[in-house]
This record gives sequence, C-alpha cells and structure tokens, in this order.
Amino acid sequence: MSGNTFGKLFSVTTFGESHGPAIGCVIDGCPPGLPLSEADIQPELDRRKPGTSRHVTQRKEPDTVEILSGVYQGVTTGTPIALLIRNEDQRSKDYGNITESFRPGHADYTYWHKYGVRDPRGGGRSSARLTAPVVGAAAIAKKWLNQQYGTVFKGCMSQLGDIVVPFQDWSHVHDNPFFAASGDAALIARMEDAMDELRKAGDSIGARIDVIAQNIPVGLGQPIYDKLDADIAYAMMGINAVKGVEIGAGFKSVEQKGSVHGDSLTPTGFIGNNAGGVLGGISTGQDITVSIAIKPTSSIRTPRQSIDKDGNPVMVETFGRHDPCVGIRATPIAEAMLALVLIDHALMHRAQCGDVRVATPNIAPAMPPAAR
Amino acid sequence: MSGNTFGKLFSVTTFGESHGPAIGCVIDGCPPGLPLSEADIQPELDRRKPGTSRHVTQRKEPDTVEILSGVYQGVTTGTPIALLIRNEDQRSKDYGNITESFRPGHADYTYWHKYGVRDPRGGGRSSARLTAPVVGAAAIAKKWLNQQYGTVFKGCMSQLGDIVVPFQDWSHVHDNPFFAASGDAALIARMEDAMDELRKAGDSIGARIDVIAQNIPVGLGQPIYDKLDADIAYAMMGINAVKGVEIGAGFKSVEQKGSVHGDSLTPTGFIGNNAGGVLGGISTGQDITVSIAIKPTSSIRTPRQSIDKDGNPVMVETFGRHDPCVGIRATPIAEAMLALVLIDHALMHRAQCGDVRVATPNIAPAMPPAAR
Amino acid sequence: MSGNTFGKLFSVTTFGESHGPAIGCVIDGCPPGLPLSEADIQPELDRRKPGTSRHVTQRKEPDTVEILSGVYQGVTTGTPIALLIRNEDQRSKDYGNITESFRPGHADYTYWHKYGVRDPRGGGRSSARLTAPVVGAAAIAKKWLNQQYGTVFKGCMSQLGDIVVPFQDWSHVHDNPFFAASGDAALIARMEDAMDELRKAGDSIGARIDVIAQNIPVGLGQPIYDKLDADIAYAMMGINAVKGVEIGAGFKSVEQKGSVHGDSLTPTGFIGNNAGGVLGGISTGQDITVSIAIKPTSSIRTPRQSIDKDGNPVMVETFGRHDPCVGIRATPIAEAMLALVLIDHALMHRAQCGDVRVATPNIAPAMPPAAR
Amino acid sequence: MSGNTFGKLFSVTTFGESHGPAIGCVIDGCPPGLPLSEADIQPELDRRKPGTSRHVTQRKEPDTVEILSGVYQGVTTGTPIALLIRNEDQRSKDYGNITESFRPGHADYTYWHKYGVRDPRGGGRSSARLTAPVVGAAAIAKKWLNQQYGTVFKGCMSQLGDIVVPFQDWSHVHDNPFFAASGDAALIARMEDAMDELRKAGDSIGARIDVIAQNIPVGLGQPIYDKLDADIAYAMMGINAVKGVEIGAGFKSVEQKGSVHGDSLTPTGFIGNNAGGVLGGISTGQDITVSIAIKPTSSIRTPRQSIDKDGNPVMVETFGRHDPCVGIRATPIAEAMLALVLIDHALMHRAQCGDVRVATPNIAPAMPPAAR
Repeated sequence: MSGNTFGKLFSVTTFGESHGPAIGCVIDGCPPGLPLSEADIQPELDRRKPGTSRHVTQRKEPDTVEILSGVYQGVTTGTPIALLIRNEDQRSKDYGNITESFRPGHADYTYWHKYGVRDPRGGGRSSARLTAPVVGAAAIAKKWLNQQYGTVFKGCMSQLGDIVVPFQDWSHVHDNPFFAASGDAALIARMEDAMDELRKAGDSIGARIDVIAQNIPVGLGQPIYDKLDADIAYAMMGINAVKGVEIGAGFKSVEQKGSVHGDSLTPTGFIGNNAGGVLGGISTGQDITVSIAIKPTSSIRTPRQSIDKDGNPVMVETFGRHDPCVGIRATPIAEAMLALVLIDHALMHRAQCGDVRVATPNIAPAMPPAAR
Repeated sequence: MSGNTFGKLFSVTTFGESHGPAIGCVIDGCPPGLPLSEADIQPELDRRKPGTSRHVTQRKEPDTVEILSGVYQGVTTGTPIALLIRNEDQRSKDYGNITESFRPGHADYTYWHKYGVRDPRGGGRSSARLTAPVVGAAAIAKKWLNQQYGTVFKGCMSQLGDIVVPFQDWSHVHDNPFFAASGDAALIARMEDAMDELRKAGDSIGARIDVIAQNIPVGLGQPIYDKLDADIAYAMMGINAVKGVEIGAGFKSVEQKGSVHGDSLTPTGFIGNNAGGVLGGISTGQDITVSIAIKPTSSIRTPRQSIDKDGNPVMVETFGRHDPCVGIRATPIAEAMLALVLIDHALMHRAQCGDVRVATPNIAPAMPPAAR
Repeated sequence: MSGNTFGKLFSVTTFGESHGPAIGCVIDGCPPGLPLSEADIQPELDRRKPGTSRHVTQRKEPDTVEILSGVYQGVTTGTPIALLIRNEDQRSKDYGNITESFRPGHADYTYWHKYGVRDPRGGGRSSARLTAPVVGAAAIAKKWLNQQYGTVFKGCMSQLGDIVVPFQDWSHVHDNPFFAASGDAALIARMEDAMDELRKAGDSIGARIDVIAQNIPVGLGQPIYDKLDADIAYAMMGINAVKGVEIGAGFKSVEQKGSVHGDSLTPTGFIGNNAGGVLGGISTGQDITVSIAIKPTSSIRTPRQSIDKDGNPVMVETFGRHDPCVGIRATPIAEAMLALVLIDHALMHRAQCGDVRVATPNIAPAMPPAAR
Repeated sequence: MSGNTFGKLFSVTTFGESHGPAIGCVIDGCPPGLPLSEADIQPELDRRKPGTSRHVTQRKEPDTVEILSGVYQGVTTGTPIALLIRNEDQRSKDYGNITESFRPGHADYTYWHKYGVRDPRGGGRSSARLTAPVVGAAAIAKKWLNQQYGTVFKGCMSQLGDIVVPFQDWSHVHDNPFFAASGDAALIARMEDAMDELRKAGDSIGARIDVIAQNIPVGLGQPIYDKLDADIAYAMMGINAVKGVEIGAGFKSVEQKGSVHGDSLTPTGFIGNNAGGVLGGISTGQDITVSIAIKPTSSIRTPRQSIDKDGNPVMVETFGRHDPCVGIRATPIAEAMLALVLIDHALMHRAQCGDVRVATPNIAPAMPPAAR
C-alpha cells in the first residue's frame, strides 16, 4: 500500500537505500517446488551491475545476493523468499552541496517536501541501485515462467540519444556494452564516441529500450483495470527515469487506420503484431512487445541553477560516479519488470480459471521478433 | 484483485456489460462531508456520452445516473457511494457473425480464450461504454480535489490521425466536436472532412490526447512502485484502445541531454516542465502533464480476414454503430482517470504524513499550460 | 481498503443504507462458467429476511434480488456480478430522538465521531440489513464450492441467553424459528416463552451460533497472517453484534493438555476435531467448526441514560421494529461469511499450487458433526 | 496477498524459518520523522525471547535486531524499515522422525499437503519463533501511537490451564515468569508447580491472555468489514495456537440482556465497557479490551498415534526444546498484534478524515482497567 511492494500474487517488497547497510526484498507467493539457489539469481544481477564498461558508473558493487528464507534443500517451499544484498562501496563524501540543495530533474526536491526528511547519500531510496533486488526477484519469476510455459525474455537498446539502432538480431545484444541488437561495428563505435564525448562534457543523454516476452499463454490479464498492458505500463513507468511507455504499435497507432492496425487472424496465427500481444487487456499468445523512453541522468557535473532547502538560489554541481546514460543498464531491468507482471497475471489466471484453460491450444503463435 | 476495482483509498469498483440491464460502480473511501448530488455527476457523463455529433456513434444512451447510497441530506457520509446507470438502447441484432468469430484488433479473441464464455452484445464488458461509471466516479473526485487544493483538470485532442492540432487555448476545447484546443476554423474543417471520409470508407483512425492537472500539492506519490507517474501510466493504458503513455517530455526525452531535460529551480518556481510535474515518482507541485496514444477503433465495416471459434477462416464485417475514432470521446475519460489517480494519492499522502505537510508553501507554482 | 470489500480473489463490495434507495453488492472474481440465476440466490436471502416469525422484527422487506451483470445466457462470464435489492419498507418516522442522541451499545456514537455526519434512518450503514447482499453473494460462493468439492454448510443456534440447546441433528434446524438443531419440543417452547417475555419487557438477549463446513480440501489457508482461522475470525467478528469467535475447541482449549487437545491421525482419518479443521492456519480436510457469541440487540424500548450530540444528558428510548435477539437470524449470515472465506482461500490455493494439489487424496475425512 | 504481510498502511511483511539463516520483516508505511534506533526495538524482543525462565523453551536465541533501512540520522524517513535477526541456535538434530511423519495438533500435516514440500527444522515457517519480527515491528508502532495519542498497551495471563488468575494490578506483570497481573505469591507458586509437573510429564497446557490498549482516539475502524474488532480478531487468531478471541464482554454477552450489556453514556464518559472499546466496528475512545484462548503446545514428549507421509501408522514423539505452555510468552505477542491493528486504523482514519477529527474532544475517557 505504501508503494514498496510490486505484484499481488507474486509480491516483491523491497527495502534499502543506496548507501545504507543493505538492500533486498521479500518475495511472497512464489509457487512451491521450484528448484532454486543463488546461482539462478546472481547472473541476472551481474547483467545490471555497475562498473562493467567505461560507459556506466565506476562504482564497484559486487552485489552478491544471499537467500535468507523460503528455500529448503534447494527447492522453494511456498513461503517468503528473502534476498539480501549488502552495500559495500559507500563513498558518501562525493556528494557536495546536494544534501542542502536540490538537483534539477532529481527526486531530492520531492522527497524533501513529502517526508520532511531524506537520506541524501547516493540518492537514498530513489537511487537506481534499488532495481537490483527487483532484478533478483525477477530471476525467480523468469525461471518459473520458463518451466511452465517456455517463456523467454529479450531486450535491447533501440535508440541512444539521436542514434537509432536498427534491429538486426538478438544474438548481438551481449556483444557490445549497450545491449544493442546490432552487429554493425561502425554504429557501435558511434555510440561509444557519443558516450565518451558526453562523459567529458559532464552531461548525460536519454535512450529507448525495447523488451519482449515470447511464449506467453493466451488469457493473461484482467478486463477493466488490471489489464495486462496497464500493469506493464505501471511497471515500466515505475522504473527510474522512464517518461514514456508503448505497447505494440504504441504512438504509431495514432496515425494508423483501423483496417491497417487490427492484426488479422488466420488458422495458423495472427498476421502482424500491432497489438503487442494484448487485446482488451488480455494476452493473445503473441509476443508481448514493449518500448520505453528513458530520460537523461539527472545527476551531471554541469553546474545548474537551483535552490536550497530554505528557497535561496544556488548553483548545483554533482560530483561522484554516475551513469551518463541510465538507459544503458536499463535493459535487464525492463525485462525484469515485464517478468514480474507476467508471473503475477499467470498466477491470477490460475486462480480464476484453473490450470486447464492455460493449456488451451494456442492458435496464435508468437510473431518473429523482427516483425515488430 | 480481479481487476474491476480502481484505486486503493478512493476505490471505484465497476460492473456491467454494454448491453446488460445496467452499468455502474461503487465508490469506497470518499471522504465524508462533501456536498454531493446527481447534478455534480451528470454533466461529466454528458461530456462523454455518444450521439453528440455526427463523428461519434449514433447510439442513443441518456446515461442518467442515480446515486443509491453514501449520501444523506446532500452530503457524503463516508460510506460507499453506488452509482447506477440503466442501459436503454440495446440493439443487439446488428452484430452479425461476430458472436461466432473474432474481430481483428478486438477483445473477442482474448475473452473467449480466457473465460471460455463471453457476452458478445455490444462488446460486453470490453465496451468503451464501461468508462461511463468511471467518469461519474471521477466527477466526485474532481469536486473533492477542487475543494481541497483548487485542483482543475483540462484535456484536449492534440492529434487526429496525421492531423496535428497545435495548442492555442483551453477555451476552444468545447467549441468543436473534437476537444481540440484550437480556434483555427480551417483546421477544424479539415478534421471534419477527414472524419466524414473515414465514415464513408467504413474505416477508423487513431488520436493523441493531452490532459493536465493544475494546482496539485507537492508530495503526492510513492517512492518505488506506486509512483505517481506509474499509477498514471497504469490508469491511462487501462483506457480502452490506449497503446502509449507519456509523462512530461515523454519520448522526446530520449534525445534530450541532462543539461536540457532537468527543469531548473528558482526561488519563484521551476523553469520548464520536462518532468511533467513528477520527480522520483512524487508530484512537484507543477502541472501534471500526460499524453496518450489511442489506436483506431477495431470495429469497422471493412471486411477483414479472421477465424471463428473452431479456428476456421472467415471474413468479418462489423455492422452496428461505432465511433470511427474512439479518441474523440476520450478526453473526458483521460481527465477522469487522472483525477482518480490523484485523489487516491492525496488520501494516501494524508495517511502517511498527515494534513500539515500538504499545506507546505509550494515554492513550485504550476507552469502555464502553453509551456508544455 | 475503506472496509466495504470482503475477500481478495472472490471480492464482495457492498453498498447501501438501511433506509436508502437500495442495497447491494458487486462480486468480482467469480470463476466463469458457473450456471447462475436469481433462483440460486433468492432462497438464501429468504432464510435471513425479517418478518418470518413473531420473534424477529416485523419490518416487511421482500428483499428481491436482481442480477445486473456478469451472467450471460445463464452462465457466469468471469466479469463482476452486481446484485441489487431495492429497499421498500422505509418507515423512518419511528426513530424518535435517536437522530440527536446516541443509543447505548449502538454505532450511533462512533459513526458520529468518526465521520461528523451520519444517516440515522434505520441505523444507516450499521444496520444488520446490510448482511443481505453478503448472504446473496455467498449463495454464489456456496454453489461453486459445492460443484468443485461437494462442500456443504450447516449452522444452528446452540444457546439463547442462558438456554443451552444440546445438538441433536441438523435436520431439526428448519423446524423451529430459532435454527435450533433440536427436536425437543419442550426446549423450543421454553425458547419461545423467553422471547415473548423479552419482547413484552422491551429488552433483548444474546445468543451463540455454531456453523460448520464439510468437504473442504486439505491445504486452504496461508501460513502466517491470512491463516484460514484468522480470516474466519475476521469474517465472524465483522458480523453485526458479534463479540467472540471460537475455532474447534475454542476457549475450552485453555484447560486442555496437549496430549488431549492434539487430534491423533490414523490411516483413515483424524481422531477428534479439537482443531476445528485448521492446523497452522491451513485446512486439514476435516469439518471446519466455528462458534460465535452475539450480543443482545442494542436498540431496545427500555429507556436508558445517554447523551446527545452536544454532550448533554438525555434518556434514550428506541421505538420502531427491532429483533429482540439478533442472533435468531444470524445463522445464515454466519454460514455466508464462512462460505466467502472458503471460496477466497480455494481460489488463492489454486493460484499458488495449481489445480492438481487440491485433488490430493484426502486421508483426513470430515468428522461426523456430532463429534464436535 | 500470499499471507505474509500484516496491515495495509503500516504493512509488515515477514520472512524466515525457525532454523534458516535469518528471520525478519519489512515495515512499509511507517510515518516519517519518528526518532528510531535498535534500542527502541530490542527491549520488546527481549520480553518474548526464549530461555528467560525454566518454564519456557531453553533454546538460546539472542534475537539481536539490526535495522537495515528506512532510518537516517536516527529518524524514520518514510521508506521501508527492514529488520533482520540472524538465527544462531539451530540444533536440528533433535527432531527425530518428525521429518517423515506428522505431529498431532501441528502444522506438519497441512504444510505437507498444501505445498508438497516443507522445512521441518524447528517447525519451519510455522514456528512461534516467527512472532519475533512482528514484535519488533510493533515496537515501532507502539512508539508512534504513544507519541501521537499517548496510547499504552498492557497485557497479562489471566488463566493457566484451570488456574484462574484474578486481576490485581498491572504492576505485578513483570514480577513473575507468567505475566500474571497478580501479587499473590501462593498463586504464583501454584502456577510454577503446575508447570514443573507438566514438564516432567512431557505434556503441555493452554492459557488465556488479556490485552488492552489505553488512550485510543474515537473513530478508528471501518463500518462493514474492516471493523476494528474484526481486524483485532484476525490479528489475534493469527497468532500461533490461538483458538478463540473475545472483545469486551465476549462470550459472556450471550447471557446478557440488552439493558445490561449496552454501556450507558454520561457527559463525562461511558459507564462500563462491555463493548471493549468498539461499537459498530469503530473505537469509542474507551480501553480496547481483548481476551484470547491459547491451545496447549502441540510438540510434546508423550508418544502419540499418527501417520507418516505415506499414510502408514506411526508413533510420534517430539524431542527438542519446546515451551510446555506457549501461552507464557504470548502476552507481548498479543500486545504487538493489537498495536499493529491500531496503527493501521489510525493511519487509515487520517486518510479518510484528516488530522482534525482525531482531535475531537473525547467525551468518552478510558475506563479504569479494573472495570473489565
């Protein structure tokens, strides 16, 4: 209720501040009988952790996860699974005057006015570091969904500032530091140059991230409010720095005619996927396709006009180690949020309609990713 | 939990199908002591009702609302307020073969596979008609927010298919059938022509809608998941036919640098509103600004390729009366959803932080609407 | 969240005041495919309605239920089911000075101080009349549980004031106006005399009600907070006038030794049912057995010392038509609440563990009722 | 939703198993600005911890609590507060054949059938050890309630098996190992003898616990389902081993007449407190009074008839260290649950009605405790 729990049936309650003793989460509702150990979770954490290239924050956080409960003899028991990640690299001295003044574009101002108190160390609770426990929880969700339905998640950066990255193949995503689904070396070099320039200038840039889920049963989602796409929008807009969310054709559908937008059905499946895998709030069995806009990092070295707590004008400069593009590490996070939405709806569907209906032969096979 | 309730503290549970006996909702959590009668609600319903121009469905629904509970001697009592709207114009005969086959782009397919049964009359539960009770509930929310904080809501259509409508002034919104904030007669004529042509062609088109809320206290929203913008995205994506949501600069922020995107603060307020009134998930006190993409109506007269319940290929034609652009009537609905999100967060903030903090002098006055 | 919704997966949101235009509820989460019409619901409403004997209020309410949504061609569709009951016999003139003063033992005082406004007509929202929609909703729950598991519900009055009613057989429950499971004509006569005397004296009396559910699958309930017995206690204590709840051996377990209390297991089932069908918060497959204490009606003709809204001393006399023992009509209500708890847990169990586990061969057959 | 979170606005999500690496909880919704450190929490944990007298389990658990988040510079920030307690004394070898068979009266049987897997070490999740994090969370709730309203909590054991403990004075509660509110040395000696005898016999016994809350504002609680007393019943019945709950006069109200039960009002307060401080589900401002029945410990040394996982008959003996009366340590736990219910309702009331109404002059001062 106070906004730190995600999901209703597979609920993830997170805690922690960027520079406090620890961060973590409690996962309530994981079905029993799933084989699970830290080895299932750590690789997903490693995908999002800082310090993996020169284009992301150089803060060193091993982000080693410990399972505190809910697993017995390597199998989930149906009781809450607590994940704990101790904070290690807590250099707080770098934050300059930001404890007394507000960074433009940052949560400093709103936390202060909401609570009357805030933890300024590393952004406190508003730090993107708090996505780590979620990625950990989603690793469990992904494993379960994969076992049940063969579901897989894929994601890539499709735009970095004004550099558009045409989709080539998912296999490229891990060959470059940007999660770009492209094998175009010149394009990757352009991206690296753009990042180097920004870093020197003490500035930052936005990005667009695409994620998809494949092999989803038909029927997930609720008819009016807890629509599958509504919950996806909620999940994505809740990621730090996200300012826009699209499902399927997204904003392109504004200019489409109905005769073009509506994906025709054939006995062997849908033709096209403007729907993004959701019709009337319920999954069609096609790929779920989502695209998000990530704003530029608000903590930059460039001095900017602001005010302090007493309302006096000040210039704010942020020191410390920040990602010049928070979008770079956002791909695994967006995948994670999508996985959390889907497992919640899968469990809800099971409550409402039982196991059987999920097994309905899917006459709507997933579209090839390139068809987006 | 089963997706028919919106909001946690000001909860709206809706019921009804397009062509069943009645539609309505139960509002739980309206604060006591608010003067209220049907006269506060009916005008909002009239703004969204069908049959007001030739560009929307000619279905005639008076949509007369009755308050069944929660009000005594003209004042809310703190107990649930039930709103009832009887369905009157239930011509079901026009629906042709759609009871046995699935319209492309429509919820027919997913409802059938989820539930194994569906009410095909007028789209059943998936009909946009179900936004009527929500608009009714939001009329109450708007009144309360206005009394408490002076909050006002404004909305307009900013794009119809490929016709962009440059913002001129809110005063124009009610002078044309499109909710366009423009006094440009030639532009309005172009829109009318485009709609007439579509109607003749038996096709439909998408639209973009902008809504804002002004005079919002600083501090509404939760830090991690129930962020104000996440809940807005959830609310907007849940509206029938919405495929994309933006807050503030939205997808434009992908190409922005941090030094440009971050709204600077001065002792008299923010400069710019790329944030759309939300930082770190919490309201800044600026205008909340939201933009949504609405797909073209999926029920069109043009015959399309589809399948029937048994998976056999069929051609589907939809008869009956449909909006060729569901976006035309979407403006009051989007305003309504925004109002429901805001009252919920206002009550939650009061729970967490008490009355006092809401009264914090707002050093961040709302930006003029034109500054979007 | 504001306390007018019962249940999480089979959610019942009620509305209405005793003497307002209507009462009713919206049921969200009823599984699709259940055959349903008003004829399934009305008989349960008739069991609790007033005016059926001289021992209950003579208020005449036909309590005719109308299904407004969620059913198509005689089958539930998975969408919300709204039930509407119009109020008809609204004689408000009988309530004397109670609009300005507070009846001892009644909600008048607390509603006034909580909300600053209250609907005094017939007790407004605090009237036991508001149990009618719940009984209606529970009729649907009972039907589903019976189809799935063969579950049946039984209830009886086991004590009226100081008259204890020894259990003989469930078949007697409908042969007397008290829901007594006894064929002892002399005992029934004693109860009738006691009630006549009370009515003449303008006073009221308490009662004890027992309810059981038979044929419940093993495994329903959550380990820590949403224990099956905790949710039953919540449901029962929420019934108007209830002051105590017991599961299984209840308060008798205070004096029991562990070697006596713990029900032994054998290959063919449990020996004894001190547990009341719940161990560690989870159903054992035995009968669920519950007992509740109902306080005497607070609206009595006997004048009593009280205060008015301004804090001045007054004498309060209640006129109008009241049950001298609200416990008499409480049996179907207690059964209804038990049914609502069980369907919610049945759906939750299905979400968590799937259909299969519910089918686990139950080596713990229900105990015969007499074994309580 | 999956039953490991208590409370809606002050939500406590617990995790952990008796003999796993750690237990703990995440508290979401604690208002900001409350001074807080481990020193506020540890004393409450110490009141319930094992090993404090020979009458409770000799298991040694220091139960040292660590705050992981939500506190900055000694003050709560409004973000989640995570409490961690490492398990230290994990002697698992003592449990004999209970990993393969089911103890009568214990959750072994139901966990196994629900989940298909269970952690048998020390009772796993069903251990009373899991009340420790709740007591820790409640220490925070108590502190906040005390600061806001001067609320205080008191509790005592009023019956041990068949030994009734007449209430003398709260000051005695900490002078004996039973939380008895009695200075009668002979009575205490009788209780000690009874416990020694039980321990020797390898058996266990039940108990009755009373708890009260004083200085509660009028107006807390919801009208229909989330009644204050319903939520208290839920909280209390959820404590391990509780089989019955009473509010105010409880089961005694069955035999009371309305003219006796209803507490009269005078300009200076209520006369009597049969209501237990709740009318119509809403607090009156009087003391909240609650009484609970605790069954005898189910883990006893006496051999008992049972079955193993395969349904074969076995004799079960429990070794290891168990409380012969779990009721002895239940008093601080019952206080804790009451505190958690009250803070949740206090915050909810603030959401609904704002700060002001809580300050309504309370014309209903709390009754002296002895008046129960």
